[in-house]
Amino acid sequence: MKTYELTRGSDFRALALTERPERTPGPRELKVKLRAVSLNYRDLAILKGTYGHFPRPFVPVSDGVGEVVAVGSEVRRFAVGDRIIPAYVPDWVRGEPTEESTRRRLGGPLDGLLREYACVHEDAAVAAPKHLTDAEAATLPIAGVTAWHALFTRGAVRPGDTVVVQGTGGVSLFALQLARMAGARVLVTSRSPAKLERAVALGAAVGISTREEKAWEARVLELTEGRGADHVVDVAGGEGVGRSIEAVRMGGTVTLVGFLDSATARFDLTRAFRRVVRLQAVSAGSRDDLESLGRALEAQGVRPVVDRTFPFEQAPAAFEHLASGAHFGKVVITFP
Amino acid sequence: MKTYELTRGSDFRALALTERPERTPGPRELKVKLRAVSLNYRDLAILKGTYGHFPRPFVPVSDGVGEVVAVGSEVRRFAVGDRIIPAYVPDWVRGEPTEESTRRRLGGPLDGLLREYACVHEDAAVAAPKHLTDAEAATLPIAGVTAWHALFTRGAVRPGDTVVVQGTGGVSLFALQLARMAGARVLVTSRSPAKLERAVALGAAVGISTREEKAWEARVLELTEGRGADHVVDVAGGEGVGRSIEAVRMGGTVTLVGFLDSATARFDLTRAFRRVVRLQAVSAGSRDDLESLGRALEAQGVRPVVDRTFPFEQAPAAFEHLASGAHFGKVVITFP
Amino acid sequence: MKTYELTRGSDFRALALTERPERTPGPRELKVKLRAVSLNYRDLAILKGTYGHFPRPFVPVSDGVGEVVAVGSEVRRFAVGDRIIPAYVPDWVRGEPTEESTRRRLGGPLDGLLREYACVHEDAAVAAPKHLTDAEAATLPIAGVTAWHALFTRGAVRPGDTVVVQGTGGVSLFALQLARMAGARVLVTSRSPAKLERAVALGAAVGISTREEKAWEARVLELTEGRGADHVVDVAGGEGVGRSIEAVRMGGTVTLVGFLDSATARFDLTRAFRRVVRLQAVSAGSRDDLESLGRALEAQGVRPVVDRTFPFEQAPAAFEHLASGAHFGKVVITFP
Amino acid sequence: MKTYELTRGSDFRALALTERPERTPGPRELKVKLRAVSLNYRDLAILKGTYGHFPRPFVPVSDGVGEVVAVGSEVRRFAVGDRIIPAYVPDWVRGEPTEESTRRRLGGPLDGLLREYACVHEDAAVAAPKHLTDAEAATLPIAGVTAWHALFTRGAVRPGDTVVVQGTGGVSLFALQLARMAGARVLVTSRSPAKLERAVALGAAVGISTREEKAWEARVLELTEGRGADHVVDVAGGEGVGRSIEAVRMGGTVTLVGFLDSATARFDLTRAFRRVVRLQAVSAGSRDDLESLGRALEAQGVRPVVDRTFPFEQAPAAFEHLASGAHFGKVVITFP
Repeated sequence: MKTYELTRGSDFRALALTERPERTPGPRELKVKLRAVSLNYRDLAILKGTYGHFPRPFVPVSDGVGEVVAVGSEVRRFAVGDRIIPAYVPDWVRGEPTEESTRRRLGGPLDGLLREYACVHEDAAVAAPKHLTDAEAATLPIAGVTAWHALFTRGAVRPGDTVVVQGTGGVSLFALQLARMAGARVLVTSRSPAKLERAVALGAAVGISTREEKAWEARVLELTEGRGADHVVDVAGGEGVGRSIEAVRMGGTVTLVGFLDSATARFDLTRAFRRVVRLQAVSAGSRDDLESLGRALEAQGVRPVVDRTFPFEQAPAAFEHLASGAHFGKVVITFP
Repeated sequence: MKTYELTRGSDFRALALTERPERTPGPRELKVKLRAVSLNYRDLAILKGTYGHFPRPFVPVSDGVGEVVAVGSEVRRFAVGDRIIPAYVPDWVRGEPTEESTRRRLGGPLDGLLREYACVHEDAAVAAPKHLTDAEAATLPIAGVTAWHALFTRGAVRPGDTVVVQGTGGVSLFALQLARMAGARVLVTSRSPAKLERAVALGAAVGISTREEKAWEARVLELTEGRGADHVVDVAGGEGVGRSIEAVRMGGTVTLVGFLDSATARFDLTRAFRRVVRLQAVSAGSRDDLESLGRALEAQGVRPVVDRTFPFEQAPAAFEHLASGAHFGKVVITFP
Repeated sequence: MKTYELTRGSDFRALALTERPERTPGPRELKVKLRAVSLNYRDLAILKGTYGHFPRPFVPVSDGVGEVVAVGSEVRRFAVGDRIIPAYVPDWVRGEPTEESTRRRLGGPLDGLLREYACVHEDAAVAAPKHLTDAEAATLPIAGVTAWHALFTRGAVRPGDTVVVQGTGGVSLFALQLARMAGARVLVTSRSPAKLERAVALGAAVGISTREEKAWEARVLELTEGRGADHVVDVAGGEGVGRSIEAVRMGGTVTLVGFLDSATARFDLTRAFRRVVRLQAVSAGSRDDLESLGRALEAQGVRPVVDRTFPFEQAPAAFEHLASGAHFGKVVITFP
Repeated sequence: MKTYELTRGSDFRALALTERPERTPGPRELKVKLRAVSLNYRDLAILKGTYGHFPRPFVPVSDGVGEVVAVGSEVRRFAVGDRIIPAYVPDWVRGEPTEESTRRRLGGPLDGLLREYACVHEDAAVAAPKHLTDAEAATLPIAGVTAWHALFTRGAVRPGDTVVVQGTGGVSLFALQLARMAGARVLVTSRSPAKLERAVALGAAVGISTREEKAWEARVLELTEGRGADHVVDVAGGEGVGRSIEAVRMGGTVTLVGFLDSATARFDLTRAFRRVVRLQAVSAGSRDDLESLGRALEAQGVRPVVDRTFPFEQAPAAFEHLASGAHFGKVVITFP
């Protein structure tokens, strides 16, 4: 079968198309023919060598969807022909994460999904929501699940809550869509007027241009009559964490999901005390979160935002497009 | 001022229109000119003498909305001209209920709102949602708050959850609307095809006719692919509690909010164990719930369902209409 | 190897000692030489044919402890020589239970532990607490885990809470000891003065004799200055559930864990509403609960109560002793 | 009556003994004759002018206990002769804090308790635990309640959990005693071997000398077999927050309660993500927390640690003693 591998190097040429033998599924495994995968910044950072140290060569990419083409002798959850999504953290089925259950992850250290076929344990897969295209279904495991875990597993967004979403990256757009589904009012920040416009079209109540208003937290307070937001999804990290704390109401939550500005968070504790703030670091989620997310999208007929799809042969171009930062929504690679 | 009082007797003639002197608000009180009140079964049961033993005469009716026409010397939360809703349980501001904070209730044992003017403590009032008419705003304190407390304070309905709502009474219609706002899929049961049709128009996914399907729980299992609902709002009580338990998924919740069939709940414990079910009795909610409910309705532009409004002079007719059971939505009395 | 099997019949003769071949552990399995098992009413009810319908012959008994004598090729969690406790519900690792993860249970439908050797998946075992004897360690999986799940996973007992424990059965004694470890004040009910005395020796603050005070809930209210208990562990079921509801404070919890009186729960809803009570059915718990329980017992040096141990050859006598109801603490069978 | 006032200046001479007229309690107020007060760093910081800006002169000190000597006409919760503790945040009765309910605080901006008599609203007082001396009872409102709120209202410490407590200040010693009451294993850090010894005598499992082991988080990992603590109570702030994050298990909690090192928290987000850590800022708690704390101490017969008591006339010396940092436990001032 055809597969990409990450080989030596830290530019897009490190992504090499090659051949590997197909594998027979173990007793509780599904053999899956991939139909689409989606890219995350994690994939880019691993390629560039700035995240993790995984012995190369290995198959990159964590998110994808495919069709079951063979099942092991003891498989009960799925059958040949089912369209399934592999869980990014295969051993984290539900409940709290543990060191033991979160060590193995698709796309590093485990081989990922940028290949024609993959074998996955039946307990580490969920049925793809029926209403989604392959490209859409491929976007759920990291960005969608992280947003779900933040808002509904760790948090409990309620109708009428105000949720602030920073930027329009993968997790942020899911957070926007999911918070809207839960009846919340969503405020989005971005430097790009064009992206803000698209965020508003997706359901955001207000777009806050951080090019014009650096102190976006002041605008959030204004828009909430001084009360503050119930929930801020912080993708910036760095000193921005302090702004996020200023933006929440007393007893509110700042969910930390990224560090686009800086990996060193900094904030003033006296303000944290005044807010009685909760800061929650979130990274990925369980298979149960993935199932709940799929069920919610299906119940509401909501579709993830796909920016652009590339054919399998042009996978490196997909990585380059993600690296450009020009996208709004997920970058997807489809299989022939 | 004009006021109704509950006098001797247990029929609608017990409701007498009379005069009482107006009162000057205390230092932290608001004097409110009532604009509309809404009726609950509690009002009817108190009138008939089947609920509580409150020394008559007293002013009935718990739910209402009015305009602040005077404020005490220390009032800070509101000003003359504000439109406010008094909380049904004035001392329950937030958090868990206690014996102490739930003893006093409007409309028995405290004087209620079926009168031209009432004085309420400023801490026991919330601003009326701006988008609602007086009639609509008057419906929130008991039915709306009970549904909110059940689904979001005691429970945590999430997008994609399945919520079963029994019947189309006040709490049930609010539960339907609120669960929809939270992204849930709602199944409604009723004996009346016409009411089911209206429930579906309000957003219910499926109406289950209990005239045709007595074992409605089987239909719920069918509609959830055998999994069961996440949440059942039980207004029937009696043996129906057993059906509600059958209808929920493992780890699901049955919220007990009424006892239309019988005040004696009965169910099979072996089935309760199999479901690891949680039964939660809910009655009313805090001022904080009332505020959250109002904020949510306003954020989503959702309006409570008003069945019919009667003028103040015809209050007894409003009680009779409620007693008839023909209504779909709240029965309201408006003031001149 | 020697094993007991449940054969035809519903008296103690149904328990037959026989031979089965030993099994080689699968890749992720542990082969365990059993050292002790403990009995639960479930075992008795299965023997008598009043609980479940499991095709006979099969090996009974759910709770036990043993030594790992061989491991499969991929085992990482344990090594030969480790002393482990198999989880009663092997597929329920953590988080909420699901139909899928709770179907398989040791001692019916799966073969149980009343045999010399058993193979268990490494993910379905925990290390035995070091300070416990084999007899003590064998008592944790059903009774201990159920009490833990009730008080700490579904509940959150805090220092100073009042917890009422009904009777002195397996779950009740664990609930008493665990609630004490959490700083709660424990009130125990029992018909037997001798058993009450022993419960007080174990840390209960007060023993309430239900022979003398049928209305034990009144005594609980008296002992809590009218406030009510925070938590009642109900093993009686039937009409007693109504008494449990009377005994809790507003907003309190009744955990349903048994039905010694009757499997049909009955209670007055108006009183449930007045208490805003939560009724939580609990049956067993996850592997994570079993690990947490073991860690807690070890940290505090607390030992489960073993009533009496029988040698493997006299297993039927152990069942008879349990059936007599004369025990205080767990009935254990030890292996040669 | 005699009272201290904070006058101009930022040294101990700012604390002036003077006279004020006594006040008659309002309808729902208690007139309390103070018996003891305890000091917090907050009092010191306010005196020095480094915390808050409260118009002087005003009466300092937030924590105290006294006897009810007169009651207003509508008082129901207490009677003359009762020994009560005023709540530090009088309007925060229970549930989540809000801007509105946390603005008023005893000892700034409101007049505090360093005076012979004070009038407090009956809803803002709790009965003093019977087993405590006046000096002991005076220590609960800030330090005790903050520790309780952190461990049991925001957190849920369970038996067998590992709790790390930094230092031996007021909140830390309460956290140590409360975590022990809840069955947790407590690890304490301190630069002082003598203080560590006393902490161990109070029930800590291990004292970690941060003079010898700067990287105390490594020692915590070692003492938890690499797993990490369940809960860290962080009083240091600054870069130490990063160490606290390293010290917790995956999914664990760091409660931020102070900033002895620096008010600017700094930590590495990648490590926060790896831990899926929750950082919770806590400052004070509700009246409900104060009541629960008192009930727990009474049920367990646990006594707060009083370092030293000073007579009313030597109040400035008490402030100086607190400023020296030599104390272990609370510094108390008793009234004649």
